[in-house]
Amino acid sequence: MHIAILTFDRFNELDSIIAYTLLSRIALLGDPHWRVSIAAPTAQVTSMNGLTLNAHIDLEEACRADAVWVGSSLDIMDVCQSAPLMATLRALNPRRQLLAAQCSGTYLLAKLGLLEDHTACTDNTSKPWVVAAGIKVLNQPFRAVGNVATAGGCLASSYLAAWLIARLKGQTEAREVLHNFAPVGEKDEYVKRAFVHIGANLETVAQA
Amino acid sequence: MHIAILTFDRFNELDSIIAYTLLSRIALLGDPHWRVSIAAPTAQVTSMNGLTLNAHIDLEEACRADAVWVGSSLDIMDVCQSAPLMATLRALNPRRQLLAAQCSGTYLLAKLGLLEDHTACTDNTSKPWVVAAGIKVLNQPFRAVGNVATAGGCLASSYLAAWLIARLKGQTEAREVLHNFAPVGEKDEYVKRAFVHIGANLETVAQA
Repeated sequence: MHIAILTFDRFNELDSIIAYTLLSRIALLGDPHWRVSIAAPTAQVTSMNGLTLNAHIDLEEACRADAVWVGSSLDIMDVCQSAPLMATLRALNPRRQLLAAQCSGTYLLAKLGLLEDHTACTDNTSKPWVVAAGIKVLNQPFRAVGNVATAGGCLASSYLAAWLIARLKGQTEAREVLHNFAPVGEKDEYVKRAFVHIGANLETVAQA
Repeated sequence: MHIAILTFDRFNELDSIIAYTLLSRIALLGDPHWRVSIAAPTAQVTSMNGLTLNAHIDLEEACRADAVWVGSSLDIMDVCQSAPLMATLRALNPRRQLLAAQCSGTYLLAKLGLLEDHTACTDNTSKPWVVAAGIKVLNQPFRAVGNVATAGGCLASSYLAAWLIARLKGQTEAREVLHNFAPVGEKDEYVKRAFVHIGANLETVAQA
């Protein structure tokens, strides 16, 4: 199972890295077929706060992954106006892969026409742009419809990551990962709160 | 104001990066004297899950910062057994700077003799090592005594970062930062929960 995290220059660190750590735990727990990659258009990317990291894969390889996480970036408008980047990203397809977008990543999915019911989550800063792209933005941290999920507020990344783990591996593993990373003394309530958000979609998928 | 985040090879991404993003927001909001740096013994460091990033400063410069955040690492034992690294880190001094340790970072503060009342927070994996170093570990996410704070569970990083912001800048700014990054629809309760933990120490300091 390969999960790619799309990470563009001027990215928000939390919107790529929280997912990277939570998702990587499945490999740490012993699944040799589980792989998580930072995907970027260039070999290195620098965040909105000046943190530079190495990408693992390019966008073409990312589009072939089993799941693709769209991180956020202050440059997301530029990404959406770049014909070459968008030509590559049009390979994303929720019929054969899961798609998860965090904060301004929702705007990218909107511009790719991948939010079928025109309703999604994003952060308060990105909201006007997402609305202008024709999407109704909900006042909640997480929403999933079929194979596409969106989240708003950087620290909602853990809900979105748990949804991906639940869909790709299992709900038990998703609960274990959340429990592991949650604050000491608040672990059970943290897992419970996350599943209030992601549980409904998982039930729908299980019944389909 | 300069805050250095100690980041060693095989670091846990969350335990360095959540702080980096939350703390950096004070600069984004317009404070030209606010600076946040990833500090490492080498020009690049690679995380426990294979993420490589560039350090901004070395450990010597980090030890001169106004506040030093100790991230966690699977190699923290090796750090503590390295005479050259520990010789550098013995420059840390809570009489002239704030110290904040996350998860196994608590072990480093213990080995440096900087946990004066021998009581702290850490994560469940690091707990046996911290206990073996003579520290009583609490079943709570955050604890501060004077200028030294510790936290346990990666996602408690936001509480520890908020404490640093409250101490260095102000409680209003700490609340604003938490509110900004919290999940949409849960922001007020997120800030409230954080301040349940960090508020007591802030009151003690204000009265001193």
